[in-house]
Amino acid sequence: MDADRLRSAVDWRAGRLEVIDQTLLPERLVLLELTTVAEVVDALRRLAVRGAPAIGVAGAFGVVLGLEDDAAAAGLPAALAAMERAAAQLEAARPTAVNLRWGVRRVVAAAAAATTGSELRHLALHEARRILEEDRVACRRIGQAGLAELGGRRRLLTHCNTGRLATAGLGTALAVVYAKAEAGEPVEVLASETRPLLQGARLTAWELVNAGIPVTVLADTAAGAAMAAGLVDAVLVGCDRVARNGDTANKIGTYQLAVVAAASGIPFYVVGPLSSFDPEAPDGGRIVIEQRPAAEVSMLAGSRLVPEQAAVWNPAFDVTPAALVTAFITDAGVLRPPFEPAIEKALAGRADPPDPLSR
Amino acid sequence: MDADRLRSAVDWRAGRLEVIDQTLLPERLVLLELTTVAEVVDALRRLAVRGAPAIGVAGAFGVVLGLEDDAAAAGLPAALAAMERAAAQLEAARPTAVNLRWGVRRVVAAAAAATTGSELRHLALHEARRILEEDRVACRRIGQAGLAELGGRRRLLTHCNTGRLATAGLGTALAVVYAKAEAGEPVEVLASETRPLLQGARLTAWELVNAGIPVTVLADTAAGAAMAAGLVDAVLVGCDRVARNGDTANKIGTYQLAVVAAASGIPFYVVGPLSSFDPEAPDGGRIVIEQRPAAEVSMLAGSRLVPEQAAVWNPAFDVTPAALVTAFITDAGVLRPPFEPAIEKALAGRADPPDPLSR
Repeated sequence: MDADRLRSAVDWRAGRLEVIDQTLLPERLVLLELTTVAEVVDALRRLAVRGAPAIGVAGAFGVVLGLEDDAAAAGLPAALAAMERAAAQLEAARPTAVNLRWGVRRVVAAAAAATTGSELRHLALHEARRILEEDRVACRRIGQAGLAELGGRRRLLTHCNTGRLATAGLGTALAVVYAKAEAGEPVEVLASETRPLLQGARLTAWELVNAGIPVTVLADTAAGAAMAAGLVDAVLVGCDRVARNGDTANKIGTYQLAVVAAASGIPFYVVGPLSSFDPEAPDGGRIVIEQRPAAEVSMLAGSRLVPEQAAVWNPAFDVTPAALVTAFITDAGVLRPPFEPAIEKALAGRADPPDPLSR
Repeated sequence: MDADRLRSAVDWRAGRLEVIDQTLLPERLVLLELTTVAEVVDALRRLAVRGAPAIGVAGAFGVVLGLEDDAAAAGLPAALAAMERAAAQLEAARPTAVNLRWGVRRVVAAAAAATTGSELRHLALHEARRILEEDRVACRRIGQAGLAELGGRRRLLTHCNTGRLATAGLGTALAVVYAKAEAGEPVEVLASETRPLLQGARLTAWELVNAGIPVTVLADTAAGAAMAAGLVDAVLVGCDRVARNGDTANKIGTYQLAVVAAASGIPFYVVGPLSSFDPEAPDGGRIVIEQRPAAEVSMLAGSRLVPEQAAVWNPAFDVTPAALVTAFITDAGVLRPPFEPAIEKALAGRADPPDPLSR
């Protein structure tokens, strides 16, 4: 059980997608073993598994789960049809995060070379495992890049959850925190609770406590005051989708953190793998923002917080203009302004990454 | 019961201080009848009654309740001692809001002229009732001043609760909303939920729904996105203490709303009675910020949101620099920059207001 407290959000074991049910943390640690596309879609929709890199991995294995032995044995056309059905269902589960579509489409593309149903399943599984392993590698690289960038900056404000529970590895923004801790540098985290779903309070605090790293939770309303009070050396956030110009879609509340950080002269870093960068989005204006159910805001733990007759506005993400970002900390190093050419160069460099499974 | 839904936070009836237990809203409407200083202190501490003007009124009547018939009958020295004991206990209940001390001290000062114990109680009661009535008048004046100032601005973002539930009258920022509605102008409110205690979600939404005014609740994280999306015509907040230079202590989260409003070119109004202005505070730097219990952030409705081993930072207020305030909407009209002379002039004008009870 104690080792489970240091698990990442997603793993693949014995033909099953294992995920931590994050909706039950911090009160209960429950592992789900997903074996069907419908179970993966459900876990994605209700945010049992969340975090951009983690849902990319989950989507990839979701495609594999769509290729059950039956489908694979029924021949190539049936297997291809099953794969496309699975891909469509998975992609529709969460519209904003680019990683989900990216993970799903990578598996579909890799499997396209198959000449039999069983080869299709084999290629899909290989690609999904490759995506998982690449994510672990990306987390470590991000951690190292952040370690070099953030020397001397001890008190880091984070938003949402960007750690083990958001990836298949050590995380994105929290990978930097783990890298600092591992290097023996002093580090402490101020975690904004991140309403409505409280990923900062529930998840970030939980995983940092388990890792023995000092963490202080604050209401989202207190983040600006913390910056104004000089309690924050840098702000580190993750990203759900970065446009070609550096505009960044991330968890709702990121934008205002960036505005206040800029007003306070505090560096504001967006941290994530290149897989979160969307070459098809020229800027943030065209990123679709997922609207989530009102009940996320109006109900909590069975208690009604908002009277029934009141309306609720509940966007899952906002867009932070590139001009408010100090730099991007990625698995391809630190990208600095002007972002457009820096992002273009980094994306060109990843065109054909080596397969981490074929070492 | 339906009329009770349009009550204000505090009232004085038949020798009792009647308050709505705001900790139970929106699920249950319960009236408390307070008859002792200890009950008033308890109601203030656990925020059953909250809102700067309302706690000023509650503090004033709390002093009266300290002068029970026994104390008054025991003669002047005993009555004076009882009054000072009550005043000290009440003032200590909430350290930041200036109105509490102001209400308590006004009653103490007015009663100082007494020559007998029973006269002391009579003078104290008269002054407390005068404070209550002045608050009602101030709310109406604030509403009218805001109505003139905000012509054409329909979609108003508010923070915390600044309405009937924050005053003995129609409110401060929400008095402007009620004045618009009464004048037949279109008005709708975006209410930030206001963690940790959710006064926006619980209280503002509840009282606006009861008044038939359109209200949309959003998580505090979504306020910046709403401004960036062009959904907000003006931001209106209350104030717990305004310094002589216009620096404003108000509910935690106010500061970052002001920063984002400025970045978006949206007018940011601080709305409140002159009783919330503190002539003894030259600027915001010396305002004591009350730290509230960690459990307000870490627990909700019996559910644990933050793991026990994590620390919590929970300041009740923050300070918004005067430079971020477009104007103050007060019972003495709209105060515009430069604020220092405007505030000085307004405070000088209130030196000896007419007694609203002696009409």
